[in-house]
Amino acid sequence: MAQQERAIRTRHAILKAAASVFDERGYEAATIGEILARAGVTKGALYFHFPSKQALAEGVFTEQFTVLALPPRTCKLQELVDVGLLTAYRMRRDPLVSGAARLSLEGEMGMQLGPQLIGGWIGATEKLLTEAKAQGELLPHVDPAESAWIFSAAWTGVQVYSHNTARRSDLEERIAQLFTHLLPSVAVPAVLGRLLISAGRAREVGEESERFTRETAAAEEDAVPAAG
Amino acid sequence: MAQQERAIRTRHAILKAAASVFDERGYEAATIGEILARAGVTKGALYFHFPSKQALAEGVFTEQFTVLALPPRTCKLQELVDVGLLTAYRMRRDPLVSGAARLSLEGEMGMQLGPQLIGGWIGATEKLLTEAKAQGELLPHVDPAESAWIFSAAWTGVQVYSHNTARRSDLEERIAQLFTHLLPSVAVPAVLGRLLISAGRAREVGEESERFTRETAAAEEDAVPAAG
Repeated sequence: MAQQERAIRTRHAILKAAASVFDERGYEAATIGEILARAGVTKGALYFHFPSKQALAEGVFTEQFTVLALPPRTCKLQELVDVGLLTAYRMRRDPLVSGAARLSLEGEMGMQLGPQLIGGWIGATEKLLTEAKAQGELLPHVDPAESAWIFSAAWTGVQVYSHNTARRSDLEERIAQLFTHLLPSVAVPAVLGRLLISAGRAREVGEESERFTRETAAAEEDAVPAAG
Repeated sequence: MAQQERAIRTRHAILKAAASVFDERGYEAATIGEILARAGVTKGALYFHFPSKQALAEGVFTEQFTVLALPPRTCKLQELVDVGLLTAYRMRRDPLVSGAARLSLEGEMGMQLGPQLIGGWIGATEKLLTEAKAQGELLPHVDPAESAWIFSAAWTGVQVYSHNTARRSDLEERIAQLFTHLLPSVAVPAVLGRLLISAGRAREVGEESERFTRETAAAEEDAVPAAG
């Protein structure tokens, strides 16, 4: 078990280093050498986990979702807002999230891996909107697939603008403004009036998610029968 | 005069070639050699107009606005929609517009020139929203500066998503969907109900803009006293 745990930690350290290099330099300019130096692992350890730069990029994509967990909400539109605010909060604090965003938007790697990440975001949003519709939270004309596409794309545009004009310092505030602009077109008035949307909520949700991730990990550890 | 006209045409041919190379390869990978080959001009002619690759990028930025002209509308929210649809229409057909977009979003050049282009788009949107507000088209709580930022950013996100998932084939339709999602949060109901928003309108507005640009150019030529 101790050996397996060490392997998981090494893998995570490599991904975190790779994500921060991708975030700063983009995929093309990133080098394995810089990732190695930043992760503080041997070349052998890196290649054991990730045989190529592309494998590292794909690993960053998958890993980012582990830091965006949140307990489900009764109101699905509130959950949609909270996931959007949480992602903004984490993107300013975790290179796994910002590195994945840069990879998905730029150059050849964006063309190759972008659609996969974009598809993942749209899919997650569509799932929440479909649940919201089933619960009567949406106006009758709303098409969850279409609105999911637009919400996800607009979220990304706000991230890009915030990154290019303010190094993301206003990201949570801008994402809150985006939701204020989009939700009147999909939410029934009774739900719209009760939604909590603010930059301050991003921090609350971010801290809630950190607690939730720690508790989930602890519960999983307890559930595993002691071995070796 | 003939010589001046030739110089203007050469300059435009160079910018069009540069924009298409930037659009395909991005700023970093673009070479002066490929731009020269595509423009079909001599190295001397190119350096006479543009002393560096950065000067070419800046030229593309400025030039794109010449292909996005439209006669003003009485209803300023309709003008906002029409400019957004026109830009989508031109972006699929003119490398000046798509090349400028790629330059503004990627890598170091995006960091350097992006804020300028982004600022230009937000500024143009804010001007229209401020006029719309003065005419009573907007709900009382709307802040034109904030909404202009969100509208511009969301437009860009839709463009990026459409580019990465469908090579922009659905761009006009997605931009129409975006306006349908954003306008209920800013327009008074009487104006909202009268706005024309559809992918089909993008083509109409695109053709109107082409006629308008031709007529404006012809009128300017007539106004110049014959010389030489």
